Amino acid sequence: MLAYGELVAFDHMAADARLAPDLHRRAVLCEMAAGEIANYRRLADRIVALGGEPEAVMAPFVEPLAEYHETTEPRDWLEALAKAYIGESIADDFYREVAAFLAPGDRELVLEVLHDDRYAEFAAAEIKAAIEVDPKVANRLALWARRLVGEALSQAQRVAAERASLTDLIVSGSGDLAAVAAMLKRLTTAHGARMSAVGLSN
Amino acid sequence: MLAYGELVAFDHMAADARLAPDLHRRAVLCEMAAGEIANYRRLADRIVALGGEPEAVMAPFVEPLAEYHETTEPRDWLEALAKAYIGESIADDFYREVAAFLAPGDRELVLEVLHDDRYAEFAAAEIKAAIEVDPKVANRLALWARRLVGEALSQAQRVAAERASLTDLIVSGSGDLAAVAAMLKRLTTAHGARMSAVGLSN
Repeated sequence: MLAYGELVAFDHMAADARLAPDLHRRAVLCEMAAGEIANYRRLADRIVALGGEPEAVMAPFVEPLAEYHETTEPRDWLEALAKAYIGESIADDFYREVAAFLAPGDRELVLEVLHDDRYAEFAAAEIKAAIEVDPKVANRLALWARRLVGEALSQAQRVAAERASLTDLIVSGSGDLAAVAAMLKRLTTAHGARMSAVGLSN
Repeated sequence: MLAYGELVAFDHMAADARLAPDLHRRAVLCEMAAGEIANYRRLADRIVALGGEPEAVMAPFVEPLAEYHETTEPRDWLEALAKAYIGESIADDFYREVAAFLAPGDRELVLEVLHDDRYAEFAAAEIKAAIEVDPKVANRLALWARRLVGEALSQAQRVAAERASLTDLIVSGSGDLAAVAAMLKRLTTAHGARMSAVGLSN
């Protein structure tokens, strides 16, 4: 799921780069996109080492991730950045939680390939600056963020329903359903903090 | 010109990756696109070291390169590969010729960032295989190649007319106009050989 997520993130960050208002910002986004592909290679190599075939093991995640991205196509530079800042951060928090249930080697690999903070910091700074220039932007982006979270949740539910092995890993790793609920609470709290940090009401 | 060419090549290879018939080929193209960005960074750093501002010095090449790509948008995977194989190879041959006129350090940098042969080999193998399966593909791609070369030439003439410093470098580097004509002949001959190599008539 994470391997395919990297391929898709590359694709979307590369497309979003076209929305950049200048060549400098465009190059920054292209460079960050290129980082996703290096991560993809590391995960694909690990899948092969485990005896899997990357294309086959990624296949179940193609549809849900495609649907998430099709329903949340950014219309401009700020929507693209907010999608990266809000959407990718929630996904990363989720992967971080699941990584805790993996064997040590795989855990470190997952933690290493998650987005570095550079991108989130870049996106957050751009969003904050845009809201300072035009406070009305905050309403528009807050609505956009709610839509992102809604679409992400519906695809996450779909994956959870279809991929019993992932659900089992999360439930048995957490301990029980109360622990799973606590994990979802942690994800929500962190999301709220990120929204406030850039001046968006949750 | 080469720095901006790398940014644009990244952009288009990333978009072309979406046309790939499977996830394996898509990942190969994404990885090759990521390589362009590493090259962009090296060239941008060199521009800064020379006291230039990358955005400003790339600006004159935005329009001609955008126009070339807008008029040659591939409609499918094979057109995308043929564009890379035919178009990028001619551009690389041209940069290689011009590199000979640069100071040693810059010459090596330019030669290093040109596309490695992996991509051309990958594209050539895919095109040859497609023609073997369906010989009619050869006619379609040969027409497509003629269009690519035509559009590339008209943008190259535009750059040559507008960028006196580049034209001066080529003419004084070559020695005289007869030597420039000989260079164009070398580019044409190499292009013809690439066409034949994959089974396309020139």
